[in-house]
Amino acid sequence: MSENHALEEGADFTPRFDENGLITCITRASGDGEVLMLAYMNAEALRLTLETGVAHYWSRSRKSLWRKGDTSGQIQTVKEIRTDCDQDALLLTVEAAGDGGACHTGRRSCFYRKVIADGPNVRLMIEA
Amino acid sequence: MSENHALEEGADFTPRFDENGLITCITRASGDGEVLMLAYMNAEALRLTLETGVAHYWSRSRKSLWRKGDTSGQIQTVKEIRTDCDQDALLLTVEAAGDGGACHTGRRSCFYRKVIADGPNVRLMIEA
Repeated sequence: MSENHALEEGADFTPRFDENGLITCITRASGDGEVLMLAYMNAEALRLTLETGVAHYWSRSRKSLWRKGDTSGQIQTVKEIRTDCDQDALLLTVEAAGDGGACHTGRRSCFYRKVIADGPNVRLMIEA
Repeated sequence: MSENHALEEGADFTPRFDENGLITCITRASGDGEVLMLAYMNAEALRLTLETGVAHYWSRSRKSLWRKGDTSGQIQTVKEIRTDCDQDALLLTVEAAGDGGACHTGRRSCFYRKVIADGPNVRLMIEA
């Protein structure tokens, strides 16, 4: 197999971490598939997620490994992990404990604002 | 409002591009919400997306602006754009023309492989 073919069609999981050692991770809810958050994993967070079945991330702002829910109670039990064609992104399907949410603002999803463009004027509208 | 409060609760759209001038973008299908792809936008791609209502991205591998679908026919009409709490990610909901797919391998979604962990052995399984 060519390098690209192996990457895209092969059975080998070869996650492509970026220059900071991170891979991008989309997290969605297992029930309705709602996109809850976007976060990052380093190799250690990915290893722990695979080993324990509970989502671990790398916090870029705090520069530390982070088991989601340790302070909020929103522990994420991983139901499925997928990777994309070029293996530089992950898609996690999770069941969130606690209030079932993921956002530190108290909302279920971090994507609670619509971007509204009215000609050159662009603003945000909260709509959870 | 504090800086964080304005960022998280305000109506001002202040997308936070990374050190490479890019913002991460999750793209899902308008019908069933299936996550189709993960890509990046620079300021120009975002501006063109807002102006035209058709998804434009920045290709990191080709280092060029890219109107999705120009070669594949999978033009993405944007139904909604959302941003997350700290405005460093976007969530697009789109209607894809052509065959309705998004992946260059011919599949609908780029996330066509499950990551299967069996103890220390991790492999991929194609399941579109």
